[in-house]
This record gives sequence, C-alpha cells and structure tokens, in this order.
Amino acid sequence: MNRVINVDLGEQSYNIHIGKECLPSLAGLLAGVPRGSRSILVSDDIVFRLYGEQFYEILQSAGLKIEVAVLAGGESCKNLETLGWLYEQMISKGLDRQSTVFALGGGVVGDIAGFAAASFMRGIGYIQLPTSLLAQVDSSVGGKTGVNLSLGKNLVGAFYQPSLVFADVNLLNTLAEKEYQTGLAEVIKYGVIWDSKLFDYLETNIESIKARDMDCLIHIISRCCEIKAEIVAQDEKEKGLRALLNLGHTFGHAFEALTEYKKFTHGQAVAIGMVYATRLAAATDMINEQDAKRVTDLIKNYGLPLHYGDIRPSEIVARMHLDKKNTGGKITLVLPAAIGRSEIVGEIDPAQIEAILI
Amino acid sequence: MNRVINVDLGEQSYNIHIGKECLPSLAGLLAGVPRGSRSILVSDDIVFRLYGEQFYEILQSAGLKIEVAVLAGGESCKNLETLGWLYEQMISKGLDRQSTVFALGGGVVGDIAGFAAASFMRGIGYIQLPTSLLAQVDSSVGGKTGVNLSLGKNLVGAFYQPSLVFADVNLLNTLAEKEYQTGLAEVIKYGVIWDSKLFDYLETNIESIKARDMDCLIHIISRCCEIKAEIVAQDEKEKGLRALLNLGHTFGHAFEALTEYKKFTHGQAVAIGMVYATRLAAATDMINEQDAKRVTDLIKNYGLPLHYGDIRPSEIVARMHLDKKNTGGKITLVLPAAIGRSEIVGEIDPAQIEAILI
Ligand SMILES: NC(=O)c1ccc[n+]([C@@H]2O[C@H](COP(=O)([O-])OP(=O)(O)OC[C@H]3O[C@@H](n4cnc5c(N)ncnc54)[C@H](O)[C@@H]3O)[C@@H](O)[C@H]2O)c1
Ligand SMILES: NC(=O)c1ccc[n+]([C@@H]2O[C@H](COP(=O)([O-])OP(=O)(O)OC[C@H]3O[C@@H](n4cnc5c(N)ncnc54)[C@H](O)[C@@H]3O)[C@@H](O)[C@H]2O)c1
Ligand SMILES: [Zn+2]
Ligand SMILES: [Zn+2]
Repeated sequence: MNRVINVDLGEQSYNIHIGKECLPSLAGLLAGVPRGSRSILVSDDIVFRLYGEQFYEILQSAGLKIEVAVLAGGESCKNLETLGWLYEQMISKGLDRQSTVFALGGGVVGDIAGFAAASFMRGIGYIQLPTSLLAQVDSSVGGKTGVNLSLGKNLVGAFYQPSLVFADVNLLNTLAEKEYQTGLAEVIKYGVIWDSKLFDYLETNIESIKARDMDCLIHIISRCCEIKAEIVAQDEKEKGLRALLNLGHTFGHAFEALTEYKKFTHGQAVAIGMVYATRLAAATDMINEQDAKRVTDLIKNYGLPLHYGDIRPSEIVARMHLDKKNTGGKITLVLPAAIGRSEIVGEIDPAQIEAILI
Repeated sequence: MNRVINVDLGEQSYNIHIGKECLPSLAGLLAGVPRGSRSILVSDDIVFRLYGEQFYEILQSAGLKIEVAVLAGGESCKNLETLGWLYEQMISKGLDRQSTVFALGGGVVGDIAGFAAASFMRGIGYIQLPTSLLAQVDSSVGGKTGVNLSLGKNLVGAFYQPSLVFADVNLLNTLAEKEYQTGLAEVIKYGVIWDSKLFDYLETNIESIKARDMDCLIHIISRCCEIKAEIVAQDEKEKGLRALLNLGHTFGHAFEALTEYKKFTHGQAVAIGMVYATRLAAATDMINEQDAKRVTDLIKNYGLPLHYGDIRPSEIVARMHLDKKNTGGKITLVLPAAIGRSEIVGEIDPAQIEAILI
C-alpha cells in the first residue's frame, strides 16, 4: 500500500503517492488524464534508459496515447534552448490543450517539464514521477518549475502545481552515491527547520538509511513531503514561511557559484551552508551549543562535507548579496533556533557573516 | 478625468484607466510600485521613438529607478529568442523579485513583456501601457500573455494579470491606418457578441470614429474594456464564456496562416471571419437575415475586407481543424445569434463550413 499525502491548495490540491515496488499502481491513478489527447513522457537520457520502457508500458496500458521526449539531462541542459526544443516536440507530436506532461527523472527533468507544462498553450496537465532522492523529497512537491539563464540559476519559471506526484523508492537503488547524498542533505534540512523527531530518526538510523533500506526511505520521504506540503499549503508563492526551506541555501548558492558548480553537488553545498548558518546562529546565541553540535555531527555522519575549501570569505558574502531573496542591500537568512525550529532573520550585518566564515 | 474600469478577479483585481491627454495622471497611479527595486520600460522601436522619452520622464518623476529595453517590434519578434534577450536585459539591468515591467506598445510588446513579467523569477510586477487600438480594446486586458513558436502563434504563455492598464487615446493619432482598422475589427466583434447598443453606436458614428474623434474613442474603448472585463471576471482561464471573444478568429487564423500572415492584418482576417461566421449562422437559421446583413454592412462600412481571396475552401476547413480550441476531431465555433448575442456551437460538420465558404 502506498503512503498518500495530500497537498492542500484549494482547487489545485493534489496527492503524493510514495511506495516500494509500486509502479503497477500508477495506472489506476490516471483516471483524470484525458484519453482523447496525446500525453508526453519527458525524461533524461540516463533515467530513460533505466526506466523509460517500464513507464511507457504502464502509461500505454492505462489507455494513454503516449509520446516521448528525452533530454540530455544534467544541470547544463536546464535552459531556454532545451525548453524551446521541448515545445517543438510537444507541437510536432500533436499535443493540445487537454494534453498531459509526465516528468520522469530528477529535479532537472521535473523543473523543465513542469515549466513546459505551465506555459504550453498557457498551461496543460502535469504529473511528476520523481526518480532521484532530491526530487522525491523536494523538487517534485510544491509547484516551483523553471529553467536557468546563463546569468543565474532558476531565474525563469512559474508556480505550477502537478495533479499527481508518484514516487517509487525502488528507483533510488540505481542512483549514484553522490546524488543520493545530495538528497540526504535536503532531508537533514527538513529535520533541522521543522521536525526534531525526523532529526532523531536520522540520528538513530544512519546505517540503514545509508544502505537505502526501502522502509526507512518510505518513512523519511513521506515525512519530508508532509512537511513540504504543510509549508507550501500555507505559503504557495513564497511570501513568508516557505522561505524556511532555504536553510543553508543562501550560503550554498554562493559556494556553488564561486566554484562554478563543479566542486560541490547542490546538496553538498547546502550541507556546508547549514553548518555555517548553524555557526552564525550559535554565535548570536540563537541556538544552544549542544543543538548546534548535533546539526554539524549529523551532516558529518552522513558523509557530507563541512567546509567550503579555499574561497575567500569576502567573496562569499558579496555573492550572498546577489541572492534573489535579498531585495534591499541587507542579507536575510534562515537560521536554526533549535533542532526542529528555525527562523527567518533579516537585516544581518555582512561583517557578522564574514566573521564566522572560517 | 479618466474613465476607470475595474477587472474583478479577487486578489488579482486591477483597474483600467482610459482618457485623453491623460499621461500626467499616470504618475499618481504608481503608489504600489516598489521604489527600492528597478523597473523596466519595454517598448518597440517605433513606439519608443514616438513616446519613449515622455513615458520615461513620467516614470522617473514618479520616483522609479527605470531601465529601458527596446524590441525590434512586429509579430516576427514575438518569439522565444526575443524573450531570452529580454530576460538577459532584466538580469543585467539589476531587476529583482520586487521589480515591475511596464509594457509600452501594441499587443506584441504587451504579450512578450507580460510573459517575461509572468516568468521572470516566477512572476514580478507588470503594468500595461497600450498604444495601439487593438491593445487598448483587447490585448492589454484579460491577462493572456505569451509568444509564438515557429510552428504556430501564441503557443507558449501564461495567464498573468497586470496591476494596472493605462490607455491614453491621444496616442492613437500616430497609429497607421491599417493598424487602426485592425483594432476596429475587434471593436465590431464586441458589438456583435455582446452589446447591441455598442453596435448601434458604431453604425451611427462611422465618420467621427474613422476620423479618430477622441471622445468617440474614449466611449468605444471604455465599452470594449467593460465587456472584456465582465467576460474575463467570469471565466479568467477560458474554460467557457471567454471563448465568445473568439468570434471570427477560427476562420481568421486560417486566413492568416494560409496567406503566411502577409496578405491580411489580424483584424482584417477577423473581419472576414466574422462575415463567414455570420453567413454560417444565417444558413442554419441561428440569426435572421436582417441582423446578418447589418454585421456584414458594418464591416464593409469601416473599410474592412469581406472576402478571403483565392484560398481553397477545403484548405481553410483543414486549417480550422488545427485550431487549438478544437480538442477532438470536430469543429467548435462562436456564431452570432443576433446583434449583441452569440453562442459557442460545438460539433459542427466540416462539410457545412465548406459549403458557405464561397
Ligand atoms: N522545483 C523545486 O522546488 C526544486 C527544489 C530543489 C531543487 N530543484 C532543482 O532540481 C535540480 C536538481 O535535481 P536532482 O538532484 O534530481 O538532479 P538531476 O535531475 O540532474 O538528477 C541527478 C542525476 O541523477 C540521475 N538520476 C535521476 N534518477 C535516477 C535514478 N533513479 N537512477 C539513476 N540515476 C538517476 C539523473 O539522470 C542525473 O544524472 C536542480 O536543477 C535544482 O535547481 C528544484
Ligand atoms: N493577449 C491578448 O489577449 C491578445 C489579444 C489580441 C491580440 N493579441 C496579440 O497582439 C498582437 C497584435 O497587437 P497589435 O495589433 O497592437 O500589434 P503590434 O504590437 O505589432 O502593433 C502594430 C504596429 O503599430 C505600431 N504602433 C503601436 N502603437 C503605436 C502608436 N501609438 N503610434 C504609432 N505606431 C504604433 C507598432 O510599433 C507596430 O508596428 C498579436 O501578436 C496578437 O497575437 C493578444
Ligand atoms: Zn535545495
Ligand atoms: Zn483578435
């Protein structure tokens, strides 16, 4: 039996299904997909090779007229060119206003395919089939879609909700170790910002989680999705609360950008960012030393990095100023107040940030 | 004093201001535009040369930090490339999440700049300053934004509402005659589908309207905006009623496409489309002969064309099948039932359409 989590957004509400070896149950969830129009399965090269045929057959057996579009994959293809190419595929393969896009892959596929669905004929149907841990706990939920510009990440996009998110944890077996770790960084984030019980669970089950135990994964993915669903339901368009999900990200984006997206995966950068956000919170007595140590220890115990290497602190702070969450001159950050509780702190003095960047 | 029309869309509600020589009043309407972030004035080459400086100064005098982006203009620039270029301008000129886009121009500028505003950082502020008659009566109201693909018009976009529409009828003085006529076709459309009084007014004031009398223009533009506002408030995302605004357009799009967008302006094609929609309605006794004649006469009296020339009727019908409003195999059309009243008619037999295409 799948775990089912509802994302409560009025008319845009939808369910997230999480299970193991649950692919056959997907067909039964597609009653709302119009059969008269073509659907398209969008994936990347790696994921399509592994799972494309299986999903294609399920969708076909559900009675859908299904077309396929396979992207090169990777962050470097998440751009306007790929989007333009995808639109052309959608037109030439005969999609219309009643069509549905299925996004099969990690966050890259989900973000591009989601934005294509949001904007093709001003919005068509859209279903997420996340295959990476990061996508299952984060990017497939909440409706942020978009692409990068050469001048910055995720600068173009839409808030656009899928009608269904369907995650089979078995797919994670084939995920590369560093991609798995990237997802774990986001999982830890949920524990720190929102849920001390999840944090405890992550502390006590390190070995089984590292070994990708399916039941552990169902537990933590469900919990992360519940948390994200709760936050998004209260603040769909990121006007307040939703910003909590950015813990570690303002630092992290700076680390990623200053190493040209080569040295760290996103999750590694976020993990280091959480270490420094925690250090800043400790330096200002927002969080006690014991909780701060638990955050850093957990990150270390999952094999995630703790330090950004040899970047100059002044450059990091300068880059953090550019972050799109900062609308004036000052820096706003999410900082942990305790395990399971965090706050959005505005008007932070850049010198204070530079002081803890050691 | 400006005429003010409210478009009632809950949280997305906004006002349309229509007046003559009313530019100075614009500054006073910008209280809601954040001063801490940069704004951008987007226009096309022709309009910017005529009015760019004037608007720039008004926006600056209102205390805005205003940047400028000038597009080549014309339908052929309403594409993903121009959009990508515009995003780059927006980033490199320092726009952020609190920024506002001002669209100064006809429907082309409004559609591109509107979609850029809808998608830049997942949605920033957006104000329409329509300068063509078509934009003042139609494209600037209702929140449809988007661009063309090489495979078809308006295939990519978003429903995204501006926070203000501001139209000065004096700007129409410099509009080329054929562009003015194009707008008049849409004005006639509103009379036919919704408002017999507007239709009467168009019949009785032909000479002053042709001469672009400012008070006549304020009257008809206000009325068209009221009608569009009423329809859009009831059906923002075109699930039903809003389709009435497509009277003449399914035919029209076929005429435009089959002559490679060279022979007819959009309004000319729509005018011919209304003639044939009316003929089809008369052939099926939906509209009486007298009303049908009034529609055709009014179109003729405004100097708009009545016939599509030497295209093969079978090609027209084939092309109409492709229209994105047709989701199954059959053809759905808006047909007039009387002056001021129209209906969406589904399941139309293609042979019946071909029969009246003479
Ligand atoms: N929309 C959101 O709310 C949101 C949130 C967080 C991140 N993101 C975006 O998500 C992207 C990162 O997502 P990601 O980490 O999933 O990256 P990704 O999509 O590039 O996937 C990482 C790699 O894993 C491969 N892969 C995916 N599933 C696999 C599987 N089951 N087996 C084997 N290989 C598999 C992919 O082919 C890819 O090579 C970024 O672009 C980021 O901006 C979006
Ligand atoms: N979004 C909608 O709801 C909607 C509705 C209808 C049409 N449209 C779109 O609108 C576009 C057509 O709009 P349009 O007819 O305004 O075309 P346009 O924007 O190309 O303007 C027509 C020409 O008139 C010039 N012009 C505009 N204002 C002028 C002025 N005051 N003085 C002198 N010249 C001026 C322009 O530079 C251009 O050369 C099409 O792309 C169509 O798809 C959108
Ligand atoms: Zn992240
Ligand atoms: Zn039109």
